[in-house]
Amino acid sequence: MTAEIIAVGTELLLGDILNTNAQFLARELAALGISVYYQTVVGDNPARLEGVVRQARARSDLLVFTGGLGPTEDDLTKQTVARAYGDGLRLDEEELEKIRAFFARWGRTMPENNRRQAYVPVRGRKIVNNNGTAPGMIFEDADVPGHYAVLLPGPPQENQPMFLDSVRPWLQSLSRRALHSVNLRVMGIGESHLQEKVGPLLTHENPTAALYAKTAEVVIRLTAGADTDAQAQALCQAYAKRFYDILGDHIYAEGEDGLEFAVVHALAGRGKTVATAESCTGGLVSGRITAVPGSSEVFGYGLCTYANEAKERLLGVPAQMIAAHGVVSAPVAAAMARGVRRLAGADIGLGITGIAGPGGGSAQKPVGLVYLAAADEHHTWVEQLLVSRRPRQSVRNIAAQHGLELIRRTALGLPQPLAQCFGPEGPVVYRQAGTPQDV
Amino acid sequence: MTAEIIAVGTELLLGDILNTNAQFLARELAALGISVYYQTVVGDNPARLEGVVRQARARSDLLVFTGGLGPTEDDLTKQTVARAYGDGLRLDEEELEKIRAFFARWGRTMPENNRRQAYVPVRGRKIVNNNGTAPGMIFEDADVPGHYAVLLPGPPQENQPMFLDSVRPWLQSLSRRALHSVNLRVMGIGESHLQEKVGPLLTHENPTAALYAKTAEVVIRLTAGADTDAQAQALCQAYAKRFYDILGDHIYAEGEDGLEFAVVHALAGRGKTVATAESCTGGLVSGRITAVPGSSEVFGYGLCTYANEAKERLLGVPAQMIAAHGVVSAPVAAAMARGVRRLAGADIGLGITGIAGPGGGSAQKPVGLVYLAAADEHHTWVEQLLVSRRPRQSVRNIAAQHGLELIRRTALGLPQPLAQCFGPEGPVVYRQAGTPQDV
Repeated sequence: MTAEIIAVGTELLLGDILNTNAQFLARELAALGISVYYQTVVGDNPARLEGVVRQARARSDLLVFTGGLGPTEDDLTKQTVARAYGDGLRLDEEELEKIRAFFARWGRTMPENNRRQAYVPVRGRKIVNNNGTAPGMIFEDADVPGHYAVLLPGPPQENQPMFLDSVRPWLQSLSRRALHSVNLRVMGIGESHLQEKVGPLLTHENPTAALYAKTAEVVIRLTAGADTDAQAQALCQAYAKRFYDILGDHIYAEGEDGLEFAVVHALAGRGKTVATAESCTGGLVSGRITAVPGSSEVFGYGLCTYANEAKERLLGVPAQMIAAHGVVSAPVAAAMARGVRRLAGADIGLGITGIAGPGGGSAQKPVGLVYLAAADEHHTWVEQLLVSRRPRQSVRNIAAQHGLELIRRTALGLPQPLAQCFGPEGPVVYRQAGTPQDV
Repeated sequence: MTAEIIAVGTELLLGDILNTNAQFLARELAALGISVYYQTVVGDNPARLEGVVRQARARSDLLVFTGGLGPTEDDLTKQTVARAYGDGLRLDEEELEKIRAFFARWGRTMPENNRRQAYVPVRGRKIVNNNGTAPGMIFEDADVPGHYAVLLPGPPQENQPMFLDSVRPWLQSLSRRALHSVNLRVMGIGESHLQEKVGPLLTHENPTAALYAKTAEVVIRLTAGADTDAQAQALCQAYAKRFYDILGDHIYAEGEDGLEFAVVHALAGRGKTVATAESCTGGLVSGRITAVPGSSEVFGYGLCTYANEAKERLLGVPAQMIAAHGVVSAPVAAAMARGVRRLAGADIGLGITGIAGPGGGSAQKPVGLVYLAAADEHHTWVEQLLVSRRPRQSVRNIAAQHGLELIRRTALGLPQPLAQCFGPEGPVVYRQAGTPQDV
C-alpha cells in the first residue's frame, strides 16, 4: 500500500507552525509497512487544493489529510475530497448534538459556523473525536474500491489520538502482515556513544532498529514484521534482549512514557517518597513528576528555592556555605537535597543548583554548570553536569532530566555512574576534574 | 513572486526527522513577501523526483530545494533540476580543493563519493557553504528568465545560515517590496469569541490579519507590504491600533515571547515580587517564570505543595478549611495565595488548586475544575476555571496560563474580568454559578 500525507493549512505555508503531524503520521505509517512517497502542504485555496487531491488520488492508494476541519474554516477540504472520491456529505444529528452540548456546557449558543463540523460522509464513515468538536472521516474511492482518503483534524492533541485509536487499527485490519514495535528508552549514554556500543545491532533487517535522540535521552525503536502479532512480538522481545545485555539498567523503560513515569513507578514500587528543591530548573522536575497521574502517592513537597534566602530559610542551607563555595556548588546541592528531605519527611531529597544562562557565568563557573544531589538515609549522591553552548531552556531541561535519573537510580539502589557518593550528612567536596559527561 | 519548498529525503518520508527546514524557509519567504503555495517532501526516486520538479517548475516562480546534496547521496537532485532548468553541471576546482582540504584536516583521503559535491551549475551560480562540504546553487530557467531553483543542503546547521547569508540578500535584491509583521498576543478571550469581536478586521487586504490559537491564548498576526520598511511598519502600527481599541489590555504583548515574559516585565516595571504556591500545576508556573532570564529580580520562592500536609505546614492553610470546603475550593486557593505571600514576604502571592485528572473528579467537582487566587496587600482575587474534556497535561497548562494572567493583572492593577474580588484576609465564598470561562 502506498500513501501520501497532505496537510491543509495556511499556518504551515507561512511557517507559523511546525508540521509535527507529518512526522508523526509518516512514522506511524512506516511502522505499519505502508510506503509514504510524498508529503504535501497546501493552503485552503479551492483550485490548488483540488489539484493536489486529484493528483494524489491518481498516484497513491491512501491519502491522509490533516487540518482544514476547524470551526473557523470553511468545509473546503471535506467537500473537495468527497467530490473526488464520489461521495457526498450529510448532517449527522449525533455530531451536531455533541457540538451543541459542548457549547451549552459553557453557557453559550453554538455559533452557526460550527454546524459545518457536523457534516460527515454519506457512503464513507465518520471517526469520533474524543478531544475536540470536529469528527474525522474515511472516504472510499467510488471508482477504485480499496483506495481511501482519511481526514483528520489539524491540532496534534486531536489528530494523534484519533490516528492511534481509530485509524491505525483500521489500517491494520486492511493489511495481513502483523507488525510490532518496541521503544527502548535509554538514559545516561549519549547518542554517539550509544551508536558505538550498539552500532552492529542497528543494521538488522527484521526487526529493524533505529535511534532517535531526545532531550538527554535516546529512544531505540525496534520494529518486527511477521505473520501473526504473537510472532512479531516475540521477534521484538528476542532482539530487545540483545540491547538489554549491552545497556542494562540504562534502559529505564519501554514505550512512550518519559522518565518521570519511570521515577514515579520506581518510587511507588519500593514504597518510597521524594521531595525536590530546585533552583535553576525552577520547578521543571516537580512539574514533570506531577504530570504523572497518581504521583501524589510518592510526592508531596516540591520547593523552588530560587533566592538564596529561600534556600537558607526553608532548606537550612548555611549562609556561610553559600558564601564559601558559591550557590552553584556541590555542597549547596547536597545541603538542598538533605534539607528538603528533612523538611518533607521524605525518603529521598533532590537538590539542583546551576547556571542556566544566558548571564551569570564566569571562567570558573561557566553557563551550563549544574550540580545535582540526591540524598537518602545512607548516602548523598552528587553529580556535576556541564551543558556547553546550549540555550537557557536546554540547560534547564537537560538538568531536569538528570535530576529525574538521579532519583530513579537512588530509589532503585542502582549504581550511579555519573555521581559521586558521600555520607548521609558529612561534608561534600566535589572533584571538578574528570571526564565531562555525555549528555 | 510565488514559491514552493521541496525537501528531498527518505528520512522525512519515514518520519525519522522533523521538517524544520520547511518551517524556517516558509517563515523567511513569507517575511520577504514571497507567497509559498506548496511544500512537498519526496524521496530520491528518479521518476518521482523528476515529476515533482516538472510540476513545480510549471506552477511557481521560485523553487527552494533542501537536501539531496550530501556525500552519501547520488547527485540526482542536482542533475534533475539542471536538466529541467536547461543548465549543465561542471566540476569546480575550488570546491574540490575545499573538500579535499576538509578531509586532509582530519588526516583522511577524500572518498571518491565526495567528488560529486564539487559539481556546480554551468550557467547558474554556486553558493558557498561555510558549514559543510556541499555547496548550494541557483539555477535560472533557460525558458523563463526570472524563474529560479535554489538548492540548499539538508542539515539545518548548513541550510539555515546559507539561506540567511546568501539567498535572502539575493532574493531581496530581486524584489523591491518591503514587508513588516506584528504579532499581537491575546489572553482571556477564546478563539471563537475573538473571531466574533474582531471578525471584520480579519478580511483586510493590506495589512492582512490572521488568528492563531495557542494554549489558552490567541496570536493575531498582522503583515503589511509597502515600498519602504518604515511605511510597512506604520501600516502595521495603525492597523494594530484598531485591535487595541477593541481588545484593550487583553493584548498582553507584541512579538514572540509568551505570557511569562509579560509577567516578569510587569512585576519588574512596578518593582514588585511574586511567590507561587502550586498544587495541580506542580511547578509549571514557577517553571515558566524562571524560564525568563533575570526572573530572580521578581521571584524568589515557589512552593509545590502537592500534599495537603504541605499546604497546612508550609502555607498555614487550616486543616478544618480543607475538611469543610475540600482541597479544591476557592477558600483553599485564597489561603494558599495569602500563605505563600506571607511566607516569602512577596508583594503578590499566587495559589492554584485543582483536579487535573484523569482520576479524582466527582459530579460536584469534575476533572478540570481549578481554583486560582492572587493576593496582594489589599485584595484577594479568586478565579474558578473549568477545563472540560481535556487531558491532564492540557488542564495543567491552561491553568498555569491563567495563573500567569492573574499575576499580570494584579501586578498592573488591571480589572480582573475572570476573577471575583475579596478583602485581603477575610472569608472567601465563591459563587459557583455564572458564565463559565472561555479558555
